[in-house]
Amino acid sequence: MQAVVRALAPAARGAGRRAASSGPAASAVRYQRYGDISKVCAVESVAMPDKLGEGEVLVKMIAAPITEFDASFISGFGAKRAGTVLPATGGNEGLGIVQGVGAGVSGFSEGDHVVPTVSGVGTWATHTVAAADHLAVVAAPSADNEMSAVMMAAGAGAPALATALLQFASLSDGDVVVQTAAHSAVGQVVTQMAAERGVAVINIVPDHTEFEDIAQHLSALNPAGFTVRENTARSPQFAKLLSDLPAASLVIDGAGGAAAISAAGALRAGGTLVSYANASRKPIVMPMAQILERGIVVRGFNLDGWAREVSVEERSNLAKTCAEASAAGKYSQLLKTENFGDWTHALAAATDATSTRRVVMVMQ
Amino acid sequence: MQAVVRALAPAARGAGRRAASSGPAASAVRYQRYGDISKVCAVESVAMPDKLGEGEVLVKMIAAPITEFDASFISGFGAKRAGTVLPATGGNEGLGIVQGVGAGVSGFSEGDHVVPTVSGVGTWATHTVAAADHLAVVAAPSADNEMSAVMMAAGAGAPALATALLQFASLSDGDVVVQTAAHSAVGQVVTQMAAERGVAVINIVPDHTEFEDIAQHLSALNPAGFTVRENTARSPQFAKLLSDLPAASLVIDGAGGAAAISAAGALRAGGTLVSYANASRKPIVMPMAQILERGIVVRGFNLDGWAREVSVEERSNLAKTCAEASAAGKYSQLLKTENFGDWTHALAAATDATSTRRVVMVMQ
Repeated sequence: MQAVVRALAPAARGAGRRAASSGPAASAVRYQRYGDISKVCAVESVAMPDKLGEGEVLVKMIAAPITEFDASFISGFGAKRAGTVLPATGGNEGLGIVQGVGAGVSGFSEGDHVVPTVSGVGTWATHTVAAADHLAVVAAPSADNEMSAVMMAAGAGAPALATALLQFASLSDGDVVVQTAAHSAVGQVVTQMAAERGVAVINIVPDHTEFEDIAQHLSALNPAGFTVRENTARSPQFAKLLSDLPAASLVIDGAGGAAAISAAGALRAGGTLVSYANASRKPIVMPMAQILERGIVVRGFNLDGWAREVSVEERSNLAKTCAEASAAGKYSQLLKTENFGDWTHALAAATDATSTRRVVMVMQ
Repeated sequence: MQAVVRALAPAARGAGRRAASSGPAASAVRYQRYGDISKVCAVESVAMPDKLGEGEVLVKMIAAPITEFDASFISGFGAKRAGTVLPATGGNEGLGIVQGVGAGVSGFSEGDHVVPTVSGVGTWATHTVAAADHLAVVAAPSADNEMSAVMMAAGAGAPALATALLQFASLSDGDVVVQTAAHSAVGQVVTQMAAERGVAVINIVPDHTEFEDIAQHLSALNPAGFTVRENTARSPQFAKLLSDLPAASLVIDGAGGAAAISAAGALRAGGTLVSYANASRKPIVMPMAQILERGIVVRGFNLDGWAREVSVEERSNLAKTCAEASAAGKYSQLLKTENFGDWTHALAAATDATSTRRVVMVMQ
């Protein structure tokens, strides 16, 4: 945690500013081609420009998470859509401090804390250059709580996505939502946001996850719901567990595959299954009776696609609100910090399928 | 066609009225259990009531089709939802003449022509008793065109469904719709309705159908589109055929399985695939990239489910409008008549997978 504290201290900001003017060499995790995150990424030294281009901002990164979405992005899907030019720096979320601004940039000053508002900014680096349109200025994380910066770095994306996903049904007190990949950061935030509305969340987590850890965490966040493993969700026991509850109004799916199919079976007629990720790498094979007889609607939501369609102000406001709420501890997420300097170890921790904790790298 | 002409003649109506008052024995195709249409159905003699119950109408049937939906209904899906009590008479569409009304029935007079407005009425019979709420009075088919009654008998369901399906996208001149099971009655009507709006329809038909027959028919109805077999739709050639056209705004799917997946690939980002039937008996395995990256929405529509939710007036008006338009030749469908007396032959013709002609049984 020392790195976080250092990054927040005024002295460090001053040092950062000096470094920017002389064009620092960043240490960055880069990929030369699309593919498996563990194969195509490597740490490289990247020269930062002596002079920033029009509309550009130089950011000294404080912390950045490694997420399932990052892996999907580097595998090509997200990156291709975002118009990524290879080689590129990985990482789509995080927290940094402005160290320099190019011509025509307004609303950003050196020393401002910033978070990305679209994917592809490249946050896995000690320093990165981004378009001002792709960043939002946020209030400084609490200097009294050393986890505040880490929570902010990890926390802009998940609450924004959870907010959007919960809007696919009109939910009110007593309703039920089923979600897959409930162990994810999005799953944890969905659970809390639903509890605020009196909505019970039925959580399905992969069989291999640290079950007790996540079940206890989710149960504390939403006592009206319960958590099961995928193999339980495929058994008749799941239907029995659901039988005392109203049919689900919404399925929020981050897994695809068998978990999504089990979850769809709990939906009320005419209900919606909205997918935001495909952690299982398996498609949804929707039984036609669900679609034809029960009128289930299957759809996807892509936060980055949404962000690129709305105004800069709209996505900036959402990122700012979510990052600041996370920094203030509003959304509890199971986190684990790793040093950016030990990228290999951080990646191993992030891709440990049994862990339910989101890995946040802390830059030095 | 003699049977049709006889049924329309005043003398036949008079005979029907007399028969009703004395409680005729109907000849009906009945099923004792849910299952394969060719195994569970048999012709039986069914006593009609001496005195009709409250709200009941006695109908002498003129003609009734045998459809894919009928088979699905008898297999259990539709029939269970409709609350069918076994044993039951098969058949969901058709044209008949009122021969008697029970107490409390208003708006129906002996001699009126009627069509069903919901499924499960049981139209595969010489006579049937139905709830007045499940029937609509229609104008008499043209006495000058002996096919008019057959077209009306075959034609209430498909235009109603096609109308509903085309509403899942906002379509205008120059747009493209892709449909599977395009050889079906619904497919033929969709093709015509789309042409009326300047919308090109790309038709996918099962590999085994009488291709030249249906391709020529559909091409005449909608010259801007084209027709391919499913195996062509799975090949790179299909993408090439589509490359000169705008991406499709809507997929209308009556097949499910591989055809639906091919069709979905032609959709624009954010487009909708709406399923109304599952002729292939195979589920839609939607590639997650289509849902997550391209924002495709997959949903179902069930005309009977819709009909049971709306007012009696609304479903009655739709059935009346569609039946009368069909009787007037507005929607061209490839039809084939069979005698109801030779039920086995009629069923064989209706379930001949290579035929693109809807079988309509003509009662004696």
